[in-house]
Amino acid sequence: MEIVILGSGRLGARFASLAAPMGHRIRIVDNDDTKFKNLENHPNIEPVKGNIFNEELDETIFSKTSRAVDIFIVLTGSDNINLMIAQGLQQKFHIPRVLIRVFDPTLAAVYRGLGMEIICPTDSAVQELLILLKGKG
Amino acid sequence: MEIVILGSGRLGARFASLAAPMGHRIRIVDNDDTKFKNLENHPNIEPVKGNIFNEELDETIFSKTSRAVDIFIVLTGSDNINLMIAQGLQQKFHIPRVLIRVFDPTLAAVYRGLGMEIICPTDSAVQELLILLKGKG
Repeated sequence: MEIVILGSGRLGARFASLAAPMGHRIRIVDNDDTKFKNLENHPNIEPVKGNIFNEELDETIFSKTSRAVDIFIVLTGSDNINLMIAQGLQQKFHIPRVLIRVFDPTLAAVYRGLGMEIICPTDSAVQELLILLKGKG
Repeated sequence: MEIVILGSGRLGARFASLAAPMGHRIRIVDNDDTKFKNLENHPNIEPVKGNIFNEELDETIFSKTSRAVDIFIVLTGSDNINLMIAQGLQQKFHIPRVLIRVFDPTLAAVYRGLGMEIICPTDSAVQELLILLKGKG
């Protein structure tokens, strides 16, 4: 699959390092290229330095028909920016799937209710804590 | 169970709000009392404003034999501070269980290897992404 990731922090870089050897082709976008130090060196991983609010960059990434994007994974540090970018670009470029990280569980629930694919690390960690509590309680 | 949580951010507050109605008694410590706005109003939840590096506060929280702490959950924003506090206080006050949030997957693996109970939101989110990738791939 052709995957674009926005944000080369710990999660983006780690995911890329695991998905690339499975055969997925990954472009990972960050405007801070020091973040690319987290990335493993793999032929299926291509770092792209740039700002996602730059329309030219977006055209280059999302409208190349030779490399049609299957999944766009949005992982900046801001929930609101993630939701805005995901919705805007999905609509504009008809991206088949968009996965969005949202830290705020309330916001996550709202957007899940609207049918969006949300990853909420807070919800997941709460569930993990509850399981640990029951496990040995 | 008698639970002490360090850090009243999203995760701490959310967990407290779910665990309190199950009958667990929770004290949640933060030096920034504006964070307590995240907390639900529940008789089993007691916010404690204070700095965990203050030994007097620690004595008050952990050495009261009338409220022996079963679990200490450490959720500041810093991995290194979490690990340091968890190890220091567990040793000093013989706390039966300590659960520690560690964002860095490498650090998380190291301390899990040492037998500590680590929650790593990065690892969990990576797993979620991989499952989503396979699910509809």
